[in-house]
Order: sequence, then C-alpha cells, then structure tokens
Amino acid sequence: MDLSRMDIKLKVGQRVRELRKQRELSQEGLAYKAEVDRTYVTDIENGRRNVSLEIMERLINALDVSITEFFNTKEFRK
Amino acid sequence: MDLSRMDIKLKVGQRVRELRKQRELSQEGLAYKAEVDRTYVTDIENGRRNVSLEIMERLINALDVSITEFFNTKEFRK
Repeated sequence: MDLSRMDIKLKVGQRVRELRKQRELSQEGLAYKAEVDRTYVTDIENGRRNVSLEIMERLINALDVSITEFFNTKEFRK
Repeated sequence: MDLSRMDIKLKVGQRVRELRKQRELSQEGLAYKAEVDRTYVTDIENGRRNVSLEIMERLINALDVSITEFFNTKEFRK
C-alpha cells in the first residue's frame, strides 16, 4: 500500500500497535492505562476510529512516549 | 503556564496559529484550504475544539507541513 495514501486512522492505529507490542502490553492493559474500552483499542489499531486529540493524548501517555516521539516515524513524515 | 500541564487542545491550537502566521495565511485562508468553517479555525486556535484525526490531517496538510514536523516542538516533547 502506498504509505502516503494510507489513511491517518490506519497510520495511527499501526503506530499504537507497534508501541504497545514493544512494551509487551496487551490491548486490555493499554485500554486500562488509557481509560478506554478494550474494543475501542482494537478498533483504533485497525484504523476504524477517527479518534479525538484527548483520546490520542491518553493513549500516547499510556504508551509512555512523547507526542513528538509518537509521530516521529516515516509514515508521518510525508 | 506550566507547559506540561497545558491542555493538548491549546497546544495544538497555538501550533496551528504559529504555522498559519508563518505562512501569512488568514484564518479564512486556512479554513478554505482545510475545508472547514472559519469559526472552527478560531475555536481550534483558542483550544476550544477536541478535533479528530481527520480534521487534524486536513489542517496540517493545509499548513503544508508533515505530521512529524507539526508535532516536533518542545510543547509536544514532554
């Protein structure tokens, strides 16, 4: 898939999954830390959620990275 | 104001305003390019909108920066 055409929801979802797995967190674990429903994490990781800034911030904090670091990958550099 | 405590909506709003002014774009001009209502740009810049990923992407594209670059400031590095 052409990365630049990839939907932002999918890019964010894949980045959440990548960071979650690096931290050996389950979806339940991330959902608990971010105070969202587990099914919501599943949807986000599959690019099915047009999440808001505040939910993004809670997820990113739960993944223990800065917002700058979260978006510092080639998918977001286009 | 303690930057780390600053609300993400306000941080994003200030970053939009900063980039918009650097490009000598009016709020109307940015609203037109991002295909959103002008009052919406005013609200965003004042931290009053919990914008979604898709609106964020349209604003960032209209400001002609990458997503990585948009979030690459000290406010987002905490």
